[in-house]
Amino acid sequence: MKRIITPKRDIYFYSSASVGGFEEGEGPLGEYFDIIDKTDFFGQNTYELAEGEMARICLNTALSKGSVSHKDISFIVAGDLQNQCVATSLSLSDFNIPLIGIYGACSTATEAILLSCSLLNNSDDSSFCASLTSSHNSAAERQFRTPLEYGCQRQPSAQWTSTSAGAFILSKKKGNINAKITSFMIGKPIDSSIKDGANMGGAMAFAAADTVISYFNESGEDPDSFDHIVTGDLGEVGSLILEDILKDKVPGAEKIHKDCGLLLYDSSKKDCHSGASGAGTSASVLSSYFLPLFNKRKIKKILFLSTGALMSPSSILQGTDIFGIAPLIKIERE
Amino acid sequence: MKRIITPKRDIYFYSSASVGGFEEGEGPLGEYFDIIDKTDFFGQNTYELAEGEMARICLNTALSKGSVSHKDISFIVAGDLQNQCVATSLSLSDFNIPLIGIYGACSTATEAILLSCSLLNNSDDSSFCASLTSSHNSAAERQFRTPLEYGCQRQPSAQWTSTSAGAFILSKKKGNINAKITSFMIGKPIDSSIKDGANMGGAMAFAAADTVISYFNESGEDPDSFDHIVTGDLGEVGSLILEDILKDKVPGAEKIHKDCGLLLYDSSKKDCHSGASGAGTSASVLSSYFLPLFNKRKIKKILFLSTGALMSPSSILQGTDIFGIAPLIKIERE
Repeated sequence: MKRIITPKRDIYFYSSASVGGFEEGEGPLGEYFDIIDKTDFFGQNTYELAEGEMARICLNTALSKGSVSHKDISFIVAGDLQNQCVATSLSLSDFNIPLIGIYGACSTATEAILLSCSLLNNSDDSSFCASLTSSHNSAAERQFRTPLEYGCQRQPSAQWTSTSAGAFILSKKKGNINAKITSFMIGKPIDSSIKDGANMGGAMAFAAADTVISYFNESGEDPDSFDHIVTGDLGEVGSLILEDILKDKVPGAEKIHKDCGLLLYDSSKKDCHSGASGAGTSASVLSSYFLPLFNKRKIKKILFLSTGALMSPSSILQGTDIFGIAPLIKIERE
Repeated sequence: MKRIITPKRDIYFYSSASVGGFEEGEGPLGEYFDIIDKTDFFGQNTYELAEGEMARICLNTALSKGSVSHKDISFIVAGDLQNQCVATSLSLSDFNIPLIGIYGACSTATEAILLSCSLLNNSDDSSFCASLTSSHNSAAERQFRTPLEYGCQRQPSAQWTSTSAGAFILSKKKGNINAKITSFMIGKPIDSSIKDGANMGGAMAFAAADTVISYFNESGEDPDSFDHIVTGDLGEVGSLILEDILKDKVPGAEKIHKDCGLLLYDSSKKDCHSGASGAGTSASVLSSYFLPLFNKRKIKKILFLSTGALMSPSSILQGTDIFGIAPLIKIERE
């Protein structure tokens, strides 16, 4: 059965924004972020509220960069990592925009963008919609792992949840950014047989491989015709596994692989173990780093896959397998 | 700005299924459910795994009732109430179907169906897709409220999370059920100013009112032309508020209002306080009760709104307002 969906009309990235915290500001992409809050608190007094405020600021910045009023946004597709996605609800409190709430763990950014493309194609009246994704290191640590005060030692395969948000204003018409989504593929939940919550990269790599292999098998395209195949946050462990699989199955694809989780921090300066993770990672790296490369005419065509590890603290304690998932969008310059 | 989206092609409910636990079997709709497990455990040894298994059985039953193979399902849109939606991941472990994971609290069923309609309309090659939603009383109680063993006294406005799942096979072609989705509307997150997690009905009623009022204002249709306006799980408290608002704003609409949360249990036999809630409630009531009424030619046209309360245990403890949300689908007999 065909998995690639080509919507009737291409959808443009009209404008976008990225917001990060201290560590993200110190990293190699720090200078490309629109806003960095070195306190990580965004003027709030809890980590959970801070994430909501960071996401709100991010959406507002994307709107302002595109000179689009929130009143012109027909709907927003958004999600985060907090239990019951409360950061998303909080971030939208100032706006009055219909919401599609989603949960795809760290695959949320790509899932949001592909759903936006689908819904925009269904609506003749909608000019603009938005996609918004966030994660906050401190909110995630105390929710998924141990209280921060505990100072738990981390495993080498563990990843560092980024404090970051990415927002995208999408439209059928061209805006600030010379990049459009021309097709997409929904990810399959793939049982990794991994039960270790500190090895999410390993758990997600097989899902990423499934998506990339399915894409090239079905499209018949040549990996050489792409500038990059970008994954969300496989980190070092997951990237090694993915590249090893691709080498055999889609030769050439492994050479153009980039991972947002390995781009966000400088591992020589920050001990981020296997790399960055968190729903905000791929969203903020897409907005701050990859989309501007289209405008600078440095890249022309990429496959972009955010990658998610489907698990909860309870499922890890109960010894349940972690499923990986990796939805895909194809982004091209006009 | 227009909010009603009318997809190019109507989408049919091809087949559907409902599965419930003990209390659901004892209720007035018990005889209409496809499967009731009086143990609530579905052969598993934790509540969390039980919910995943219930959802898996439900999807399998919907497939079998429609004589559709899981290999013919292009994608599934699914969600539940467990942290990080793990019941959904678990339920799909036997299948090999691309997943759109969503979170809309108790509004998940309608959100899933409207996204399915949108994605099916984008794909020329997809014959079938599925929507799946579940909730489990015991998994929800210990996650959202207090450990069951604590025996906490419940407030009169509190609702009873149902142990139930609903699955829908959707298609561009007609199957077992003479009912199709002809338009939909994405819900707006509405700040209810309510901070009490035991008053979800109150928190959701304003969102339901916003959606119903917006629908009739924009469509210019007459409430009299509908058989019912069905809400997800406002319960007694929320239904009173909604009907009170509608009486003024859309006269006549209040008279045809039905609430799934008030249909699932018999309050003279079961002390369910304000009524049923949980993501499975509206899904299972739509499948077990309303869709068959179309086939029996007892109803011809309804508005169906699942209603969700966007909150988490942390957001309640931190005193954050609960946002309500109510996406809508219009269902018509051919």
